[in-house]
Parts: sequence; C-alpha cells; structure tokens
Amino acid sequence: MTGGIAARLEELGLSLPDVAAPVAAYVPAVWHGDLVWTSGQLPIVDGELVATGLVADPALVPAAGSAAAGPAGSGARAGSGVAPELVSPDRAAELARICALNALAAVRSVIGDLDRLERVVKLVGFVASHPTFTGQPRVVDGASRLLGEVLGDAGRHARSAVGVAVLPLNSPVEIELVAAVR
Amino acid sequence: MTGGIAARLEELGLSLPDVAAPVAAYVPAVWHGDLVWTSGQLPIVDGELVATGLVADPALVPAAGSAAAGPAGSGARAGSGVAPELVSPDRAAELARICALNALAAVRSVIGDLDRLERVVKLVGFVASHPTFTGQPRVVDGASRLLGEVLGDAGRHARSAVGVAVLPLNSPVEIELVAAVR
Amino acid sequence: MTGGIAARLEELGLSLPDVAAPVAAYVPAVWHGDLVWTSGQLPIVDGELVATGLVADPALVPAAGSAAAGPAGSGARAGSGVAPELVSPDRAAELARICALNALAAVRSVIGDLDRLERVVKLVGFVASHPTFTGQPRVVDGASRLLGEVLGDAGRHARSAVGVAVLPLNSPVEIELVAAVR
Repeated sequence: MTGGIAARLEELGLSLPDVAAPVAAYVPAVWHGDLVWTSGQLPIVDGELVATGLVADPALVPAAGSAAAGPAGSGARAGSGVAPELVSPDRAAELARICALNALAAVRSVIGDLDRLERVVKLVGFVASHPTFTGQPRVVDGASRLLGEVLGDAGRHARSAVGVAVLPLNSPVEIELVAAVR
Repeated sequence: MTGGIAARLEELGLSLPDVAAPVAAYVPAVWHGDLVWTSGQLPIVDGELVATGLVADPALVPAAGSAAAGPAGSGARAGSGVAPELVSPDRAAELARICALNALAAVRSVIGDLDRLERVVKLVGFVASHPTFTGQPRVVDGASRLLGEVLGDAGRHARSAVGVAVLPLNSPVEIELVAAVR
Repeated sequence: MTGGIAARLEELGLSLPDVAAPVAAYVPAVWHGDLVWTSGQLPIVDGELVATGLVADPALVPAAGSAAAGPAGSGARAGSGVAPELVSPDRAAELARICALNALAAVRSVIGDLDRLERVVKLVGFVASHPTFTGQPRVVDGASRLLGEVLGDAGRHARSAVGVAVLPLNSPVEIELVAAVR
C-alpha cells in the first residue's frame, strides 16, 4: 500500500524516477541511524542530463550563441575556444526541481516508503554560475519549493546555496540533502 | 535567566542578531535529534549585506576601482562590463566572523538558550575567490576564532574551507555549521 | 593489537600519516554520537602539498608551461600574470586518493582504532577546475575507490563532486567525509 506522500506526488502530477544501480564505489544514498544522506543529484531525466551550461542573468542568456556572447565566453571559458552555454535563472530553478525529485528518489531507494521520511534536515545547492550571477538562492528555491509542495512542513529545511565554477557533466545545478526518517 | 554563553558574548561586546522570519520553503536552522544544522550564513548586519565582491591577495586589492583593476576585472568578471570589487583577506576574515555570529543566532533561534549548545561539530566556509587567491583558511579562521572566543573548547570544530566562483548577493563569504546540543 | 583494517592497509602497501596537531580553532576531526566528521583534507604527504593547480582535460594539460597555455591562463587566472598550473584528471584522482587516506587518518585520530569505523556515510569532493573541465566524478573516484579497497562494503558512501574555482594553498582537490563508528 502506498502512503500519503506517494498520493501527494500523484496529485501533483509528479513521479519519482527509478534510481540507477550504483556503478562505482559510491551509492545514491546512505541510511545510518535516523538520517539518510543523498549523493549530489543532477537534473537527469530518463538517464539524460536535460541541460548544460552556466547559470547567468537573464540579460545575458538571449545572447548565448550569438556574437554578443563572445566576451562572456572568452572570460568564463577561456581556452576552450567555445562560448559557454548560458542558462536562465528560471530554467535553472526548474532544473533544481528535477534534482530535488531525484534526491527524493534516492531517499526512497534506501527507506522504501517515503512516508518514513520525517523531515528534510539540510539541503545544499551548488549552482554552476557565470561570474556575474549572484541569484543562486532563486535557483535553489526550485528545489526548496518542490520539497514544500510534496512534503509540507516536513519539507522545510536548512539550506546553503553557493555558486561554483563548473559541475559534473557541465550540469547547471547539483543538489544534495540530508533527511531524517523514522 | 541567561546562561554562561550569553554572558560571554556580552563580555566580548558581541550581540547576536534576531533571525529574520523565514520567507521561503527553508528555515534558518533545523534541530533534529541532538544536532542543529544551520543554513548558509552571509555577513548581514541589520538586514544589510555589509560587503560584496571577491576575496583577493592584498596586493590586488588596493587597485580595485582604479585602472589597474581592469585586467583582473576583465578576466574574473568578463562580460559584466564592470570590474569586480575585491576584498582583502583581513576584511574577509572580519566578514566570516559576522557570518559565525549569524550562525550562532540561527542555532539559538531553534534551541532557545545557547547554553544548550554542546559542541560545534562541523563548519564549512565558502569564500568567493579571485582566481589567484588561495588563502581561504585565513579567511575562514575569522569564523573559527569567533567560535573559540565565545564557546571555548565547545567551539573547536572540524572544518572545510573552499574557494568558489561567486556567492549569493555577491557576498564574499558564506558559512554553514552543524552543532551538537543537549 | 591492530585490527582488520590496519592489516588491510598493510596488505595494500598503504600507511596512514600521523595527523598534525591542531594549530587553530579547528581540529582534524570531531566525534559526536556515532558520527565522525573530518575537516577538508588536502593531498599532503609528509607535511607537503604534493601538487598544485587546476584540473583540466588531458588535451590541455601537456600545454601547461608552453606558449599554448597562455590563453587558458589569461582567462582562468586573469590579473595574476602567471599561467595556472594544470593537472590531469588521472593525476588528480591519485591526489584524491591521498586526500582519502588523510581523511582516514583524521578519523583514526579521534577513534583510535579504525576497526571501530562502521561505515563511510558521506563524502564531498571539491575539485579545483579549469572552466571547461566537467570530469569531477572521475577525479573523486580516486577517493571513493580507495575507501572501497580499504574498507570493503563499509567504504560505500553517498557522494557529491563539485568543481570549484580555487582551493586552499592552490590544491587541486579537497575531500571531506562523515563516517559512522561503533
């Protein structure tokens, strides 16, 4: 029998992905005591990273791929010979939402039933950021809001949002969390 | 009745700020079991971020705002058209101290009385860094020393210091911590 | 009497370093409850950082120090007047392995006997990354694999790998972990 959180996900039109079998000396999540620690989650859907690049202020994003993107590219990705892809904060917030869903899936992979999830304790959001982009909280809000929608008060967490130079596979966002379970 | 840590803060001429009410799906700190996890803290005083920019070696900082800052700016903030503000390590250590005070305030907001704080377990310091700046430990020492001054042995923690590209609101420093409480 | 993990380390030809006495208001590791939290570990051997620089795609690394490194240097380290040193992913994975050994040494420094280590719960790997380098997982695998070799199933952890602008002392890699002990 599925519990309240599974029903809530369905009501929101959301479904959690299956979690890929571990291919390395690390795993999607570890349950120890009453805490579950997830690995960093990327915005992967059906096994594919759905976007790449650096998050930038909206004014810079339309210029991506055009000549106007040259100066940004030459500074942020010097030596690559390729202008970096730029991602808007709104799009990045959607990606953070996907990361949060994947984090819930990682938690479920070790506890079985998400109704055992008592509280999301901490979330860290890493945002691959263009050097002038300082709106990381707005991006990570995509993850925080998803947790609130699905989990209600149990989704209210402590959080850090930081801007980093580059993330694995050129992902724009990576989210990790620690959850308390009963 | 206020306890020993409140008295110690007063003796040091320090006061903890009130913690702003949460405006999003996250909170300043979460208490679960005997651990309190804080959100990432910025050097905010009376609701205002007190400095912005990247931390850089002292030799680079006096040039900020002058023509000599151009090359640094054009590389570190290419595409912005504005040279980045640079912050000295000493100033950044003061900012880290403010972050640590704010982190204690966040802990207090959930445990009520700081005398319940048994030990700071872990601290992570993110330093928004000019690409040539490698003195992150010296910056984060500002937070570590504050905890030692206020808490004595209970303030001795494990710590990571990393240099990142950019932080929320263009803050030079962000500090998060995990504390054990009784 | 030394236990199974000490024997396993010897079998692998590995030895854990002594941990330097704390010189600041932080310590190599903190043990609270059944968790040990380490400080961020650098690839230090006999007190010396064994490599510096940014991790970059192999195609870029041979050019380090030659004229071809100029453009990369001028973008990634603008204002420094010095081309950054570049480190290959394979070399960086070796460095991550050293960091993981140092993390085990930090854990041992507080629990005494590594056979008390029940499980590595979480590992975070920070990789100082050239702006075009997106292979952070491959680097951090160096740490994850070492833990698997030494600890077996107890070494299988949740993990985050992120790329950062610069690390303390210009280290290419920094690793922190949380371990459960009994």
